[in-house]
Amino acid sequence: MKNKVIQMYMMFGVVALLAGVAYADTDPAAVNAYAIDNFFLFITAVLVLFMQAGFAMVEAGLNSAKNTVNILFKNLMDLCIGGLLFYVVGYSLMYPGEAFAGGWFGFGGFGISSAAPSEIGAGVLHPQVDWLFQVAFAATAATIVSGSVAGRMKFVSYLIFSAFITALVYPISGFWKWGGGWLAEMGFYDFAGSLVVHAVGGFAGLAGAIVLGPRIGRYNGTPKAMPGHNLSLTALGVFVLWVGWYGFNPGSQLAVVGADNTAVVMLIAVNTSLAAMAGGVFAMLLAWMMFKKPDLTMALNGVLAGLVGITANCDSVTNAEAVVIGLIAGILVVLGIKLLDALKIDDPVGAFPVHGINGVWGGLATWIFGGHPMVAQIVGSLVIPLWAFVTCFILFKILKAAGILRVSAEDELRGLDISEHGEEAYSGFQFFTTQ
Amino acid sequence: MKNKVIQMYMMFGVVALLAGVAYADTDPAAVNAYAIDNFFLFITAVLVLFMQAGFAMVEAGLNSAKNTVNILFKNLMDLCIGGLLFYVVGYSLMYPGEAFAGGWFGFGGFGISSAAPSEIGAGVLHPQVDWLFQVAFAATAATIVSGSVAGRMKFVSYLIFSAFITALVYPISGFWKWGGGWLAEMGFYDFAGSLVVHAVGGFAGLAGAIVLGPRIGRYNGTPKAMPGHNLSLTALGVFVLWVGWYGFNPGSQLAVVGADNTAVVMLIAVNTSLAAMAGGVFAMLLAWMMFKKPDLTMALNGVLAGLVGITANCDSVTNAEAVVIGLIAGILVVLGIKLLDALKIDDPVGAFPVHGINGVWGGLATWIFGGHPMVAQIVGSLVIPLWAFVTCFILFKILKAAGILRVSAEDELRGLDISEHGEEAYSGFQFFTTQ
Amino acid sequence: MKNKVIQMYMMFGVVALLAGVAYADTDPAAVNAYAIDNFFLFITAVLVLFMQAGFAMVEAGLNSAKNTVNILFKNLMDLCIGGLLFYVVGYSLMYPGEAFAGGWFGFGGFGISSAAPSEIGAGVLHPQVDWLFQVAFAATAATIVSGSVAGRMKFVSYLIFSAFITALVYPISGFWKWGGGWLAEMGFYDFAGSLVVHAVGGFAGLAGAIVLGPRIGRYNGTPKAMPGHNLSLTALGVFVLWVGWYGFNPGSQLAVVGADNTAVVMLIAVNTSLAAMAGGVFAMLLAWMMFKKPDLTMALNGVLAGLVGITANCDSVTNAEAVVIGLIAGILVVLGIKLLDALKIDDPVGAFPVHGINGVWGGLATWIFGGHPMVAQIVGSLVIPLWAFVTCFILFKILKAAGILRVSAEDELRGLDISEHGEEAYSGFQFFTTQ
Repeated sequence: MKNKVIQMYMMFGVVALLAGVAYADTDPAAVNAYAIDNFFLFITAVLVLFMQAGFAMVEAGLNSAKNTVNILFKNLMDLCIGGLLFYVVGYSLMYPGEAFAGGWFGFGGFGISSAAPSEIGAGVLHPQVDWLFQVAFAATAATIVSGSVAGRMKFVSYLIFSAFITALVYPISGFWKWGGGWLAEMGFYDFAGSLVVHAVGGFAGLAGAIVLGPRIGRYNGTPKAMPGHNLSLTALGVFVLWVGWYGFNPGSQLAVVGADNTAVVMLIAVNTSLAAMAGGVFAMLLAWMMFKKPDLTMALNGVLAGLVGITANCDSVTNAEAVVIGLIAGILVVLGIKLLDALKIDDPVGAFPVHGINGVWGGLATWIFGGHPMVAQIVGSLVIPLWAFVTCFILFKILKAAGILRVSAEDELRGLDISEHGEEAYSGFQFFTTQ
Repeated sequence: MKNKVIQMYMMFGVVALLAGVAYADTDPAAVNAYAIDNFFLFITAVLVLFMQAGFAMVEAGLNSAKNTVNILFKNLMDLCIGGLLFYVVGYSLMYPGEAFAGGWFGFGGFGISSAAPSEIGAGVLHPQVDWLFQVAFAATAATIVSGSVAGRMKFVSYLIFSAFITALVYPISGFWKWGGGWLAEMGFYDFAGSLVVHAVGGFAGLAGAIVLGPRIGRYNGTPKAMPGHNLSLTALGVFVLWVGWYGFNPGSQLAVVGADNTAVVMLIAVNTSLAAMAGGVFAMLLAWMMFKKPDLTMALNGVLAGLVGITANCDSVTNAEAVVIGLIAGILVVLGIKLLDALKIDDPVGAFPVHGINGVWGGLATWIFGGHPMVAQIVGSLVIPLWAFVTCFILFKILKAAGILRVSAEDELRGLDISEHGEEAYSGFQFFTTQ
Repeated sequence: MKNKVIQMYMMFGVVALLAGVAYADTDPAAVNAYAIDNFFLFITAVLVLFMQAGFAMVEAGLNSAKNTVNILFKNLMDLCIGGLLFYVVGYSLMYPGEAFAGGWFGFGGFGISSAAPSEIGAGVLHPQVDWLFQVAFAATAATIVSGSVAGRMKFVSYLIFSAFITALVYPISGFWKWGGGWLAEMGFYDFAGSLVVHAVGGFAGLAGAIVLGPRIGRYNGTPKAMPGHNLSLTALGVFVLWVGWYGFNPGSQLAVVGADNTAVVMLIAVNTSLAAMAGGVFAMLLAWMMFKKPDLTMALNGVLAGLVGITANCDSVTNAEAVVIGLIAGILVVLGIKLLDALKIDDPVGAFPVHGINGVWGGLATWIFGGHPMVAQIVGSLVIPLWAFVTCFILFKILKAAGILRVSAEDELRGLDISEHGEEAYSGFQFFTTQ
């Protein structure tokens, strides 16, 4: 029995509890620098994990009340199931080190190391905190999708999808860039993941929205808006995501010690802010011109669009360029929402315009404003979305063929909360029956 | 008059405003290390304080709309009244230093010191930030209870209870372990408070639920579920608690400087995450098997259960063990909720299964997986819950005898918001009258 | 074309991307200290930015459901438009350095510098992180007002006002104190902005409430309470603001390295907590005595009042004094709310009692308890509110004269969400038509 347990540990690749490595002779300044950088990554990881709350609130609020439990549940499981799988295999697929590493695929073994670094100092990260930071990014990629497929997908299928993207799709394309694979070697640049994270989620969601088809009644004749049930939650979620992005982008520098690191982290934080602000303002202005009234949902999506657009290049552009990148992102998200309506693709929360279109925009802006090589940026901005779209399209098709992708029309009209979970989100409140 | 003011200060034990101690000769590395460790504890304290928002949202969301103001108010006062009392006496009861310290009881004087440490360096904490960190833990213990007694307890009685637990019950058993009392001397281990904090709250709440009796209609014949009014809030609360737990557990290392401290903090953060994930997944799976549908409330409680279970031992186990601890916690919380139903004990939010049962589980897992001595762990895991249960049971009985424990049936049916506070939480919304 | 772009950059005062300044010879302890202090300010800035979520939730929750989109939108734009303008001109008006600086007005040029400091070490801040911290304060001043004018002001007028206060009103009086202007030279003390931030917002809001007049039906005969639609959101918002205040006050020390800085930061954090707790408890007690029932809204406003009151002096008083300051603040806020009712001034969220009255109280407490010179404190506590009130009063009058200040009675009764934005916050929920 005991042997079995030990075997299990070894299967999960757990090296050992941190042995009491002797650091007595180490330079105190190196010890301090090591503490600061790891503390910095820990706190920014916590901010990124907080974004899960933001996504849950944004997505829940933008859908009807009868699907709230389902949305919240999907977001929770993206982190829980996704996180466990990213522990078991995902992290090691994305960051295999030398093990089996080719340009397209690598695998460094199950689990994650808890061995302390052999030498410490500025910029040295403990493997455990590195995983914490990375798992939050993986969960983000998955959870973007839950909005696109809201209101009609079976819960069990969603869990299969969530496991698939976190354990395989995201880590493999992530390896191409951040793990040192072929896109990295080519010179492709994506600082904090406009493409590696957001476009993966956005295009996976597009595949889901296409294969699932629209919600009943959404595109009978002219597009019929199906308004969200709680914009307070949505606005709260956007504020939380904005706050969380101060982990996402500045944390991606992976170090704050060293005058250049300190400076870049602070520049990133300001650029992130300015792009969000400009995205919000210009999405509002364009929507105001187009629809005659200022629309909160558009402005909120504009903020998120600005944040996605600046993510790849926040360390490479000036403050003024950050404003321009955000401004264009805010315009793109409004046009993108109209485009989906024209194509009769039902993406209930606008996840594709926000994360898909603006993920690509972020990659291109990294060339246009950030000065990174054109060809690599174009290739990366095409290939990563394509990878996510194709692999997820195939999975969604398989789930459809298996007859477990979409709930029945009756269940959809009744709402997924009752039909899938036997639970209401807002017990006691009265609703109009048409919602 | 001035003398009186000075006297008052001395009564509260305030030593003096930080005198401009001369640190000019101090080694710059020591100054830096001191700043980092205190900054670290400050930020983790803020994360733990943020958990108050999480508890408020979890508990409010799981109860009916008519009791929302009451729940929110109790949570707020747990922090406000509890915090003031923990300033006046609680902190000093829990951490008396040498003053009057025996193994069972100690008291170091009123108030808290603001005197700067005589020597600074790595691991040295300013007394003010230590209090900030500790007060957040005290408020947690109190606020767990407000869920167990929801929907039927008089507000004034709750305030008396809240003062009692924060000023006396929690600090005294806390002293036994963290203040250096008899449990500490015995070798009992509870890293961040599965027992010292969570089981105290969970068992105090159990006492309250038993003495109060169930809400009207809850156990007439078969148990009747009384669903929460806002699972969006509850899910938000769980995400916030999860985030806050990155303060609770990693912060309890009390230092991040020094290679070993840095490593342990990061291991703790990952173990905390993995236990939460496993708790969520396995509570969902068990509930799915038992009730045929995946239940969000169970999964959310599973996450919290995993977090409670890992709290005592997060520094002492491997990543894989953290998964196992969380997995078992997730199963225990579902079984615990069924157990309470079988016993007809009405704990509206499942606070006892989450914090009580899994607090004890955390203490035992510290022996089973963490390798700490069996006898001490069993003793501590029995005595602390017993202490909290008995003292609070007596208080609830006294309040009952005084006729101020429970509201009238009429007031209960009408809802505590109107009857106790003359205020509705959701003015303008229409409700079904039965809720 | 390229020239034009360069010109634009220069117009915005962007100096250059951080040149790879050579710090190789720098003392490692100085590099660490620089990293810590900038990291500290970055994280506290993030906490202050998080307060925007808190304000949005507090204000939305305290108003009726039909005005929710409008309130959320105003809060979002305070940060987006306000932030962009604070980037373009506001920051430089408030902190002009030597440029054109007189005691009353200065301007250091458009945009903000991204040039790394020429020398690094403890207490040296990168200009980018300084802006991040300051912009959050500017947005706070603006967003306080959105509550006071809720339910009846046109959105477009609010945007004009928001731009005006963030770009001009707040930075100019801010310069008088924090930029080194005449109030600073006079010896006026306002540590973190009871006056510079909160009283500016509170008195600007008072001007708005007076010029706009009350909401329809609010003061026909006896004052009619118009209860908020979602006290869960309001309570959440208060918890978030409380958490954010740990950035607001401790961060205002601007440095944590150095034993004195470390100590003061920790003292500030505790004083901030104690004042909030005392404010909550004593507002509850007074309201309980006055209205016979404990009122959650009053207690929540009491917490905020305590936080505002301690803001100017949190570094200058003892823990016990912080309790007294919070206690008085809690009493003042209840009396202030009654005072507005007596004067028939309709401030839907109590922003003036919280931020206006208690901003002034904070300034006076800085003299009474903090020991700063009486005359300077009285002058500053009069002049800053007067400046904000008069300038904003004039602007509101101009907007009124232009006929764009207030919506029509029909639109007001229907709710601003539909009339101004064509969007409901809670689609599908049923409401009583009178709300």
